[in-house]
Amino acid sequence: VKDPRRIVAAKRDGETLAPVDIEAFVGAYARGEISDALAAAFLMACLLRGMDASETLALTRTMVASGDTVSFRGLDRPTVDKHSTGGVADGVTLVFAPVAAALGLAVAKLSGRGLGHTGGTLDKLESIPGLRTDLSPSQIERQVASVGCAIAAQSPTLVPADGAVYALRDATATVPSVPLIAASVMSKKLAVETDLILLDVKTGSGAFMKTTAEAEALVRACLELARGWGRSAAAAVTDMSQPLGDAVGNALDVAEAVEVLRGAQRGRLRRLTVLFAARALETLHGIAHEEASAAAERSLDEGTALDRFRRMVEAQGGDPRVADDPWSVLPRAPVRMPIQPDRGGVLSAVDAEEIGLASNALGAGRVRKGDPVDPAVGIVLRPKVGERLEAGEQVGEVHARSEAEGTEAVRRVLGALTVGDDPVQPPPLVHEWYG
Amino acid sequence: VKDPRRIVAAKRDGETLAPVDIEAFVGAYARGEISDALAAAFLMACLLRGMDASETLALTRTMVASGDTVSFRGLDRPTVDKHSTGGVADGVTLVFAPVAAALGLAVAKLSGRGLGHTGGTLDKLESIPGLRTDLSPSQIERQVASVGCAIAAQSPTLVPADGAVYALRDATATVPSVPLIAASVMSKKLAVETDLILLDVKTGSGAFMKTTAEAEALVRACLELARGWGRSAAAAVTDMSQPLGDAVGNALDVAEAVEVLRGAQRGRLRRLTVLFAARALETLHGIAHEEASAAAERSLDEGTALDRFRRMVEAQGGDPRVADDPWSVLPRAPVRMPIQPDRGGVLSAVDAEEIGLASNALGAGRVRKGDPVDPAVGIVLRPKVGERLEAGEQVGEVHARSEAEGTEAVRRVLGALTVGDDPVQPPPLVHEWYG
Repeated sequence: VKDPRRIVAAKRDGETLAPVDIEAFVGAYARGEISDALAAAFLMACLLRGMDASETLALTRTMVASGDTVSFRGLDRPTVDKHSTGGVADGVTLVFAPVAAALGLAVAKLSGRGLGHTGGTLDKLESIPGLRTDLSPSQIERQVASVGCAIAAQSPTLVPADGAVYALRDATATVPSVPLIAASVMSKKLAVETDLILLDVKTGSGAFMKTTAEAEALVRACLELARGWGRSAAAAVTDMSQPLGDAVGNALDVAEAVEVLRGAQRGRLRRLTVLFAARALETLHGIAHEEASAAAERSLDEGTALDRFRRMVEAQGGDPRVADDPWSVLPRAPVRMPIQPDRGGVLSAVDAEEIGLASNALGAGRVRKGDPVDPAVGIVLRPKVGERLEAGEQVGEVHARSEAEGTEAVRRVLGALTVGDDPVQPPPLVHEWYG
Repeated sequence: VKDPRRIVAAKRDGETLAPVDIEAFVGAYARGEISDALAAAFLMACLLRGMDASETLALTRTMVASGDTVSFRGLDRPTVDKHSTGGVADGVTLVFAPVAAALGLAVAKLSGRGLGHTGGTLDKLESIPGLRTDLSPSQIERQVASVGCAIAAQSPTLVPADGAVYALRDATATVPSVPLIAASVMSKKLAVETDLILLDVKTGSGAFMKTTAEAEALVRACLELARGWGRSAAAAVTDMSQPLGDAVGNALDVAEAVEVLRGAQRGRLRRLTVLFAARALETLHGIAHEEASAAAERSLDEGTALDRFRRMVEAQGGDPRVADDPWSVLPRAPVRMPIQPDRGGVLSAVDAEEIGLASNALGAGRVRKGDPVDPAVGIVLRPKVGERLEAGEQVGEVHARSEAEGTEAVRRVLGALTVGDDPVQPPPLVHEWYG
């Protein structure tokens, strides 16, 4: 058996590793046969020396092979998986799943929890009283067959090596590496058999990828992995230079999703969801773009998507009245404070990460894995870049546990807004589609 | 308190770290407050991004501060410390210490044990029956005052952070970094107050530094640290493209040292020892080079150095007869086999590392820290590069525990020799002096 230090030394010295060496090393780590320290040195060497497509594929293959894989063969509809790299007020998944279901597609979405300044779909969904996300594969399959969509917690037996490697990366400052991120994202997608993988790679102040160049590099690495696996995939680099929707929190996100699902909210969150749903419909049902978009729009305007949402919530044990009157069932924070800029003008920038962190500080997110989240607190902020604000106008509100926390959050949100005098072009919603 | 991951991230991203951050990080690691994994990521980032002089000094300062420091203030003679980065058949320290003592200098040498393909001075010395190296600081001081030299084991309370960091580097493929090696070497020299530090940085097939450029980089980093500390130091890059002396082992090395000390062996090992002793005498007693060299030569030819060696052995509990008739007291291996090349010609190269590893395989060295070593086994190989060999001529012998191990070692030694027809220029003994 090769001394695993030789594999680390080869990467350290800039060599390209053979797939068999990567599989041996990462496989041994996943089995607990290699120390965290040697694995951390390996990850830092990979981060600084880079990994090519064959190395990244070998890493991904080892991660997938470390656990179970899931397939939904019994379904009579094509399946689609949609993944976001994480953003602020990014409620697309909550809306996309029922829209796709309403369009005759199947969505079995296995999600993780939020970490850092971005929220997690599971945390949002679990703010609905009674709703469970710990579904077994057979429960998921039955629900998808009947309702068309399910959003469940990723089982700990799915890609366990990714969980171990991600925790180690988080602990050792080895997170920001395109190949390591791509392997982590795609291992979880490739372990679940679907007919199409859609990736929403965020870029901008509220995203992990701060520049479009970084986001594009991640897209290319992910699509290369899908190609290497023989899986159909497409990706968009989308704007996260400001929060996507208006709500940042958990119950607040669900309430906003319901607004979009009942056709009442027509902003960027709706538009992006429609773009992804249309893309899925084009690819999987061979429908032209215009027609596919129109179908997705109709599912929102005619209530068919909302109906799927209601049925999904009910199937997962949640109170279905959330679909009709969200605040009759969702938890509300005791303190609500208005957000009112003291200067009028044109909103020229929003520091989306700061908004996310302010919401976290209220208790909506977690700093460490396993921390509890407060479902009720968060931030609603309506204006988007390019819009005009009046001094003293209420542009949103903070939902907090206490006056003190609320005041601090209002201060942080106001500090995250840049208001100027000149007109500003709103940023594009989608920078580019790939694949 | 700063999240230690931010320090690792800064180094990862190519920043120069503030001394205070290095001290905080390495100090916390030495106190057990930082995981091996995060420290390993830090070391790999340091290895790949490099460390400048101020960073290396801060690292060294933290290592020195992690334990006790030693000074020999009661001595009436100037003190000199001589350190080799490790080579094959490198018995210089065993000869240098008594030579320097004979010349009126004081040598209190704190040594580590051998690891890898190079031998350790302590292991060699302990092949003398009865000899102890676990001397207390006051024992060392008394012995140096009376005899002029002592060679003792480095106390575990001296630079403990270096021990911890070195073990981690060995386990995580982060050894070959000039700043990390320099900090490790120099922390142990700087923790002991002496009037002069002499460094013998080996280069070539039998050294850790395979090229003179690497060796020169290490010399510069070490001398920079000495300067930053206000300590007098000089260094030579010396040849390790072939074994320095003839003996590779433990008792075999002691027997060879005695041959040199009684003036009988006059090869490269004697010449290099004389050069270092002369350098010390020049620097510490202000004596001209020619005169200093002659004094060192005389100490070997007239037996004054051998007398110091005998007294040192006796003071440390060893059998002093080793100085007069080494094989009357040293352990002998049961099997001795001749080394006889089957082809005559000019010896054009010796793979020194392979000779060291062959000796290790016989049991003379250790693969892992804490392994026992066999004092009796090893290799004697007399010819040096440029010399003529006859086919079938006995050029040395293998001392082994068994026929099988002996046969294998003979095979490896013969495989490490390159014999050609053309004349070959012997390599220089010293490439360059610095400082």
